[in-house]
Amino acid sequence: MGYALSTTVRRPFAAVLDATRSALSQQGFGILTEIDLSATLKEKLDADIAPQVILGACRPPLAHAALKAEPSIGILLPCNVVVRAHDDDTTLVEAMDPKIMVSLTDNENLSDVASDAHDRLTAALAALTT
Amino acid sequence: MGYALSTTVRRPFAAVLDATRSALSQQGFGILTEIDLSATLKEKLDADIAPQVILGACRPPLAHAALKAEPSIGILLPCNVVVRAHDDDTTLVEAMDPKIMVSLTDNENLSDVASDAHDRLTAALAALTT
Repeated sequence: MGYALSTTVRRPFAAVLDATRSALSQQGFGILTEIDLSATLKEKLDADIAPQVILGACRPPLAHAALKAEPSIGILLPCNVVVRAHDDDTTLVEAMDPKIMVSLTDNENLSDVASDAHDRLTAALAALTT
Repeated sequence: MGYALSTTVRRPFAAVLDATRSALSQQGFGILTEIDLSATLKEKLDADIAPQVILGACRPPLAHAALKAEPSIGILLPCNVVVRAHDDDTTLVEAMDPKIMVSLTDNENLSDVASDAHDRLTAALAALTT
């Protein structure tokens, strides 16, 4: 996916979800929101999908800098990081690529913030497989 | 903003926030997440910004259809709707434009879902000024 940073982790979903929270924290992101998408679709539609959680990651200094550069940037916040089961032993972790998201704004003043967020998310994902 | 659906409402922030929740509900969206961005930045950075709340709106049948068409679409969910104060009497409401977001995926199978979400969000925003 051209709009995603992603990695495949050879560990079960629950362990990778915990590890992802830790990896984001180590890169300075707080988790502002957490959506259990599989539970939501089960409850609302009785639909079965593989376990999937959307984490809303936010590094406040980056969010603040982004808002100063682009007052409407809130609609692209926080940075979504999705953890989803591929099978019992394999889990995908995908994050929105801040550089791609910011390209929607055509605002060059966001490029430093987007690069910083991109590098921190990339490092967080890399930490899951090392 | 080319990536946003937006409207300006000549009412105070708190009233518009309530009205936005209602308008989204009437269009079949649940609010899965709610981030008080101004409170978060005050708490974390002691920074002062105008009142601003990010609502994470989700219509489960649309989310489910989108996931079937594009397994990675979770990183673009839910639909963010931002309510932010312009001044004491004027409030901006902005939503991510699902058509623009989906254009990032280059997946034509998402176009019906994106159009449906776009039309519902447009109707919700229009309801705020009528």
